[in-house]
Amino acid sequence: MNIGGAAAHPILTVGSVALDSVRTPAGEASRMVGGAATFFSVAASFFTDVRLVGVVGEDFDAERTVVFEGRRIDLEGLQRVPGDTFRWRGEYGADLNTRETIYTHLNVFEAFEPRIPDRFRSSPVVFLANIHPALQLQVLEQVRNPAFVALDTMNYWIEGTPAELKAVLRRVDAVIINDEEARQLSGEPNLVSAARAIRALGPSHVVIKRGEHGVLAARREEFFAAPALPLADVRDPTGAGDTFAGGLVGYLASSEARTHDVWARAIIAGSTMASFAVEDFGLGRLLRLTAEDIRDRFQAFKRLTHFDAL
Amino acid sequence: MNIGGAAAHPILTVGSVALDSVRTPAGEASRMVGGAATFFSVAASFFTDVRLVGVVGEDFDAERTVVFEGRRIDLEGLQRVPGDTFRWRGEYGADLNTRETIYTHLNVFEAFEPRIPDRFRSSPVVFLANIHPALQLQVLEQVRNPAFVALDTMNYWIEGTPAELKAVLRRVDAVIINDEEARQLSGEPNLVSAARAIRALGPSHVVIKRGEHGVLAARREEFFAAPALPLADVRDPTGAGDTFAGGLVGYLASSEARTHDVWARAIIAGSTMASFAVEDFGLGRLLRLTAEDIRDRFQAFKRLTHFDAL
Repeated sequence: MNIGGAAAHPILTVGSVALDSVRTPAGEASRMVGGAATFFSVAASFFTDVRLVGVVGEDFDAERTVVFEGRRIDLEGLQRVPGDTFRWRGEYGADLNTRETIYTHLNVFEAFEPRIPDRFRSSPVVFLANIHPALQLQVLEQVRNPAFVALDTMNYWIEGTPAELKAVLRRVDAVIINDEEARQLSGEPNLVSAARAIRALGPSHVVIKRGEHGVLAARREEFFAAPALPLADVRDPTGAGDTFAGGLVGYLASSEARTHDVWARAIIAGSTMASFAVEDFGLGRLLRLTAEDIRDRFQAFKRLTHFDAL
Repeated sequence: MNIGGAAAHPILTVGSVALDSVRTPAGEASRMVGGAATFFSVAASFFTDVRLVGVVGEDFDAERTVVFEGRRIDLEGLQRVPGDTFRWRGEYGADLNTRETIYTHLNVFEAFEPRIPDRFRSSPVVFLANIHPALQLQVLEQVRNPAFVALDTMNYWIEGTPAELKAVLRRVDAVIINDEEARQLSGEPNLVSAARAIRALGPSHVVIKRGEHGVLAARREEFFAAPALPLADVRDPTGAGDTFAGGLVGYLASSEARTHDVWARAIIAGSTMASFAVEDFGLGRLLRLTAEDIRDRFQAFKRLTHFDAL
């Protein structure tokens, strides 16, 4: 059940663990285990060891914890505190491209202070899921010279805490955001110009997620683009972005080389994992996944996009 | 100046030749030679011989005809009649994704009846540009067993003349339309389902153009997807879709084989030509293009999308 070998580098990730309630045109589901760090960790754990730092409440019972069991996910950094777990409810429009947040109850996540267990402080790869950039900085203060740091963020922080966000951007290697966020962060409507402007803020790698339109990624001066897999039946897009990040960073961490070729395969590994995530509610499809499923679908991406030179 | 050899199959195309006036965030230009059949023919003529059937007015002077000169474009089917040439004026929004038509003066195009010169009737490849589906049918009545017929259409005919459109769709091999049109024609919001529904109407090949998001193409059961080339400086998107069709059908006509591999390269040839079209106003960039430019950019698409198997 793993693709990267035992020698793959471990990843430290810090972010939300949540209970999600979702309604989509395909149906409805309540209080599923979700959250950015959860989707990321489950996806990345197919490739390497993952160290999850986050917080849950007393309602996060054994039935919930089971999603992490039997996987390469170390929960020493998952704090359990009095109160309720972060809860979110969202409803999707008919075409799944629009989403309305019905509620966001931060609960125990409101006072979350990332404490990185000593064992995790020399993690060579770090993924900072979408949390307050000041907390992302706190994480970086606690780790020792990671070789590769990737970050997600959102409109709320781009608008509300631009100085903190820029401070953390100066210290990361990769930013993984959606097209709207890329335009907002850079002030550039054109994505090529946006990627260039974001690189000028620090990250040498900029990954722009375009949902059903796929991904545009810049690694220094060079672009790589991948379509999304054409899927007739998308049931729940929640977590697809974090799952993409999990596949991408997981694949990178499982590879020794830092070349354009490895980077391109990492984008496809991310796209592969995201294509599974949307096929069922919550973590449903990811929890049933095998390494063979992943290899087969990666190959489907190859067939979908491959052409020979003229 | 040509990529397909002398043995490439000739293409018959029927559609508009126009004088376009355009305003985009990059500037403004008036009465440029345009029209679907024009963009298609100029693009396809880099790959094979093109036979253009259309109509222009007395205002289409020698200065205008020059765009066709020195190219593999046979103008025997270009009628010249009293009156003015079809004129269109459009203005693009800041992000180039929205377009407002300021006027459409059909002029001599209003009474256009496609008459296919005898020499053109056995053309093995036919491209029916976006005109009334009844006229598209008239063209097919005049040609003898073409090996491959492709068609473009638009919202106006999908809504206004669905019966005629379905009659012509039953007789074509490929339909090349944008995502909005695909959804409207099929009644399916999901593009995978839309492609399937459109194939059930007749065409074995369905090409869905998504503008800056690239192309999703179905050849029978199999999909091929290509991103658009990331361009920082798009000056005028007018004609990009017809230029795409010209590259696609031109490449197909220049190839003997009818395999998935040839089809995939044809999609990239179309994307390559379209990426040039948007770099300048009207035909500007296409008229300066060399075969070497085309080969280089095709290779840029390869670099943009290539990854190795896991």
